[in-house]
Amino acid sequence: MSVRVIDGGVTAPAGFRATGLHCGIKANGKPDLALIVTDTPATAAGVFTINLAKAAPVYLSQDHLASSGGRASAIVTNSGCANACTGPQGVADAKEMAKLTASAVGCREDHVLVASTGVIGVNLKMDKLRAGIPQAASAATADGGAAAARAIMTTDPFPKEYAVEVSTEFGNFRVGGMAKGSGMIEPRMATMLGYLTTDADVDQVMLSRALAEASRYTFNAITVDGEPSTNDCVFALASGASGVTINENLYPALFEGLRAVAHELALGIVRGGEGATKLIEITVTGASTDADAWMAARAIANSPLVKTAVHGGDPNWGRLVAAAGRSGAAFVLDGARVQIGSLVLFENGRPFDELAPKAAEYLQGKELSIEVNLGTGGSHRATVWTCDLTAEYVKINAEYRT
Amino acid sequence: MSVRVIDGGVTAPAGFRATGLHCGIKANGKPDLALIVTDTPATAAGVFTINLAKAAPVYLSQDHLASSGGRASAIVTNSGCANACTGPQGVADAKEMAKLTASAVGCREDHVLVASTGVIGVNLKMDKLRAGIPQAASAATADGGAAAARAIMTTDPFPKEYAVEVSTEFGNFRVGGMAKGSGMIEPRMATMLGYLTTDADVDQVMLSRALAEASRYTFNAITVDGEPSTNDCVFALASGASGVTINENLYPALFEGLRAVAHELALGIVRGGEGATKLIEITVTGASTDADAWMAARAIANSPLVKTAVHGGDPNWGRLVAAAGRSGAAFVLDGARVQIGSLVLFENGRPFDELAPKAAEYLQGKELSIEVNLGTGGSHRATVWTCDLTAEYVKINAEYRT
Repeated sequence: MSVRVIDGGVTAPAGFRATGLHCGIKANGKPDLALIVTDTPATAAGVFTINLAKAAPVYLSQDHLASSGGRASAIVTNSGCANACTGPQGVADAKEMAKLTASAVGCREDHVLVASTGVIGVNLKMDKLRAGIPQAASAATADGGAAAARAIMTTDPFPKEYAVEVSTEFGNFRVGGMAKGSGMIEPRMATMLGYLTTDADVDQVMLSRALAEASRYTFNAITVDGEPSTNDCVFALASGASGVTINENLYPALFEGLRAVAHELALGIVRGGEGATKLIEITVTGASTDADAWMAARAIANSPLVKTAVHGGDPNWGRLVAAAGRSGAAFVLDGARVQIGSLVLFENGRPFDELAPKAAEYLQGKELSIEVNLGTGGSHRATVWTCDLTAEYVKINAEYRT
Repeated sequence: MSVRVIDGGVTAPAGFRATGLHCGIKANGKPDLALIVTDTPATAAGVFTINLAKAAPVYLSQDHLASSGGRASAIVTNSGCANACTGPQGVADAKEMAKLTASAVGCREDHVLVASTGVIGVNLKMDKLRAGIPQAASAATADGGAAAARAIMTTDPFPKEYAVEVSTEFGNFRVGGMAKGSGMIEPRMATMLGYLTTDADVDQVMLSRALAEASRYTFNAITVDGEPSTNDCVFALASGASGVTINENLYPALFEGLRAVAHELALGIVRGGEGATKLIEITVTGASTDADAWMAARAIANSPLVKTAVHGGDPNWGRLVAAAGRSGAAFVLDGARVQIGSLVLFENGRPFDELAPKAAEYLQGKELSIEVNLGTGGSHRATVWTCDLTAEYVKINAEYRT
């Protein structure tokens, strides 16, 4: 089995069309409506936010996946309005989005998945969507993935799409995807919005399992600001058009294809995090349990003191030790170790501050690795990706609605 | 029983002397050594950080409180160096600080409590302390509380001291205190550094109980950046010099005296939080359990999106709902309510955005109240105080060691 990067995103696999356009939800004229359509009903799976203030489209998509038995023909997404905390009107609007899409593409209403992203607490401009959705259905093409990736953006500084071809002894299939960030990001079950497509032929149970497992180490292992949002969803659609049927033997190939695309998209969300200038990989080792490893890695990755120190190029290992020490994970100071890049700055209870200038130089880079060993002698580990905390993050979020 | 605010801080109660001076730990010439001395051995209690990477002086003070049976004659504190993550040398240095102090003031070594605050991972300049501590012991006076409050500061923009006189039918006693912040602040057991003195006559068990209970609603209910530090301690000393003996009947008077001083000091820490421009009181109501109320209040108070929105004067109630929804507390969206000042912006599943301009005007103030009802129908509540997140916080912490 081998995995090769190819051009494109959600329309790289066979059996998918997509588009993105401006229908009028955003005031600034930027694309705000994305549509993915399958040639025939696809196998579908989703993972959704743990936030208890879920948006109307999240509930609707969960309902549709249940009632259809995990089949979908289209995913319609608007940006610029989250349709969250919008009461009964929001529920009616999400339903109407599905109905408009079903009618425009010619499929069952519960074969439409719906997603929204943008400001919370504002109702959708349905008149814009009534005109826009049929227009998008006509415009969807087999090379429209890039346009769709642009139309799901809010404060994202760049679109995020990626695709791979997986070669196996039984034939080749492709996996493509797109995602958007970029604030209110610490997906515990999914990311803000992620879309994975494959032309593998796979049943719903196996697709759900592969999506959940791939998400765990990718979308669920990133954080921008520790804020799981109201609208997080990742969808996976499998068209079967490659003719390669995924059985237990080929499950690792499907998993690896989904993981490779999800990994790149997840890192793209962090690189494009609000105000971010650096991608930081935090690895925690020496943890007593798997849960401890994740807890400590998340505590470090969300620590404003760690994130500002990295922003300032300060190899402040004391803040890494302090964050690990208060994370709730078992921690033994005398056994702990902190490594920034390849430089060990703290070990056996004592600092190696003579390495600080070299570490400061390393921190000038844009993609950084930090490892913290919790010193318990345990063998559990976890890796989480985060970004630095900058004055620009504060500016973006202080002025978001003004 | 009545409580009246009086001038001063730790030396306002009878039986205490204090001072603060520059001994040479800070390079900028600012005060860096504080000493509190009691005329006779006082009853003493302490609450300490939950961080597992505790600093050497934290362990030493815990040991001394245990071996002395809760008696103390002095508290010595240096700022500019945390003596945390400093290995065996750090332990030896904390011990020597106690020994130097015992010798200078003429008391038992285990009657000295020690605290340090500043940069993590750097060893103390003991030569400076060997000269400074005897000098401080000579300089300590009954009106030296203000000087001590200045000498414990690091990035604090202003000193924090407060005192009250409690009048009871059995006589009057005083409670005074001082504290320092101002980053790495989310004390779960104590604050960064807090000192409470009283001239009430109280035994160790009752003083410990009153300190723990008073801390819960004051020092333990504030957050600047969600980071419990390596050095958090609150100490309470009771000299007995007022002649008022605290028994069960007078316990409420002692509690209220400690609480009143601790409340004001805790709010001072938030007002002086790194980069802070606003004090924000977050009250969560309608929680199913006490733990849920605290969990949701802390999640909201530590949400960077909430803190930046308040900074920007944006009544973004959607972020309050989202933070409550992902806090882990039980939450029912349709029953939830968000109130900013006296303005209800979200209730019964629908926004009242017509009030947004009024709420934006309210947010121009410096001291703000926000209430979020979790909508479960429960009656539990919690109040937490936090500050806004500003570009200045990022600047301070990106440049802390450079």
